[in-house]
Amino acid sequence: MSFDRLIKKIIETKNPSVAGLDPRLEYVPEYITKAAFEKHGVTLKAAAEAILTFNKALIDELYDIVPAIKPQAAYYEMYGWEGVRVLTETISYAQSKGMYVMTDGKRNDIGATMDAYASAHLGKVNVGDKTFEPFGADALTVNGYLGTDGIDPLLKICKAQDKGIFVLAKTSNPSSGELQDKCIDGTPIYAVMGDMCEKWGEDTIGEYGYSAVGAVVGATYPEQLTELRKRLPHTMFLVPGYGAQGGGAEGLKVAFDENGLGAIVNSSRAIMCAYKKEDCLETDFAKAARREAIRMREDIVRVTGLSK
Amino acid sequence: MSFDRLIKKIIETKNPSVAGLDPRLEYVPEYITKAAFEKHGVTLKAAAEAILTFNKALIDELYDIVPAIKPQAAYYEMYGWEGVRVLTETISYAQSKGMYVMTDGKRNDIGATMDAYASAHLGKVNVGDKTFEPFGADALTVNGYLGTDGIDPLLKICKAQDKGIFVLAKTSNPSSGELQDKCIDGTPIYAVMGDMCEKWGEDTIGEYGYSAVGAVVGATYPEQLTELRKRLPHTMFLVPGYGAQGGGAEGLKVAFDENGLGAIVNSSRAIMCAYKKEDCLETDFAKAARREAIRMREDIVRVTGLSK
Repeated sequence: MSFDRLIKKIIETKNPSVAGLDPRLEYVPEYITKAAFEKHGVTLKAAAEAILTFNKALIDELYDIVPAIKPQAAYYEMYGWEGVRVLTETISYAQSKGMYVMTDGKRNDIGATMDAYASAHLGKVNVGDKTFEPFGADALTVNGYLGTDGIDPLLKICKAQDKGIFVLAKTSNPSSGELQDKCIDGTPIYAVMGDMCEKWGEDTIGEYGYSAVGAVVGATYPEQLTELRKRLPHTMFLVPGYGAQGGGAEGLKVAFDENGLGAIVNSSRAIMCAYKKEDCLETDFAKAARREAIRMREDIVRVTGLSK
Repeated sequence: MSFDRLIKKIIETKNPSVAGLDPRLEYVPEYITKAAFEKHGVTLKAAAEAILTFNKALIDELYDIVPAIKPQAAYYEMYGWEGVRVLTETISYAQSKGMYVMTDGKRNDIGATMDAYASAHLGKVNVGDKTFEPFGADALTVNGYLGTDGIDPLLKICKAQDKGIFVLAKTSNPSSGELQDKCIDGTPIYAVMGDMCEKWGEDTIGEYGYSAVGAVVGATYPEQLTELRKRLPHTMFLVPGYGAQGGGAEGLKVAFDENGLGAIVNSSRAIMCAYKKEDCLETDFAKAARREAIRMREDIVRVTGLSK
């Protein structure tokens, strides 16, 4: 009922980073896509199967050195329900290898509807006399614009089933400030949202001092990252914007506490497409991803000090 | 590239309301669920198939009197990828009957990821040398917390393919005010978000004066509804909170312009579960839904004056 499970994995792998699995079909090596087309025709099913093959090979090379994956729901929905099927299979495959899975869905709604999302992505659903875990992720990103009504159904499941959520506070994109930087009585909205995260999480604090309610805070805004780390002592941060989005490791130190914990840094394209940058054989794509994941771990840990 | 297609349907059916298809399995008559269990076992697939049967029967009774359906993505994701498959089939079935379909997904993300959501739900996706419409809805609800970066990819598709979006402004739930009512330099956030909708939509205004960028404004807050209607002359409103959530038709007048246009009112449970309230035969559930939809149309139009 906190982020302890994730933090233990981070300590075990000495790696406060998460591999974002955002598999556009263009990222998948051609020989995999070609084989899928041969088997299933040029269809959404073929696209989905190619992505699944790609994901599994990446997971096989990452699970012992990276604590978690973060599949981005949009890239699965993009290939229709076949894509969503492959999201489910990706989640369970990663978990079968011991990885922690955070679905990046930024879901939001109220009451019974949010309850449906929470049951779908983190919890269980009853059908007749049976119980199913439709997606079964360990954590979910959510959007808090609707207030407590949209968060309570998630908290119930976080507590009952030891899951977590990350609420958008300060996102990494250029226009994030249009709303998030505006001030309410002198406090920027990203900090107001952060304060709500502290409050929502207050009775789920685990042994490392962090609750089950984390916040998304972009690496691209180091000043806000610094401010929020001080302001939100019990809130675990999910930090996008490292690597492909431009943020470097130096600016990341401020996201972490004095033990090198309290944050997990995402990298998606740099890991998935490492083989394109390295100019190695397509068939070595997963090894290239592993090399990039190790480089990233060293780059981050050098700054955060977790390995000491 | 505006909401003209939807508005024409509203005028044609003389009905500014939308049937929310949020099919929890408990809402589906038992004889349908039982038949699905017999065919597919007690599985997520059976749940999804039962929901599809339910949805199709409702659409058959509603398509000539209700302009649009609004399937809520959460209730499909709740039954896993089989549920999502049935969302796809529900959308295309309703469209085959001439209905306008707005997927209620409250999606939000940035850049390439939002582009993936936009392509998934409203647009097209290339696979090899072919093009697919993964979900193919006519409109999508979205959350604007991330600013313009999260809206631009949608606008591109709205313009190219004559689709629309509804951005959350003032939601109908009790805690919506926690963030949305807070003021930025004297202006509440829901109005700031509304102003952004006007701006985002400014070059997509159609023949009825409304752009392709609508706003979600709850019926449960008539004061804010009045204020926003005046403030946002080119923004079509999607109004939840009528019926089951407690708002009545009297308070709805303020959502509409002098022609009885500019808003569409949602009702979900009251229509889907009309047969439970009426205490009629389970097998008459779709006829009961039709009766409730007609009652609702009359209740609303009496106030808005569209039928005159």
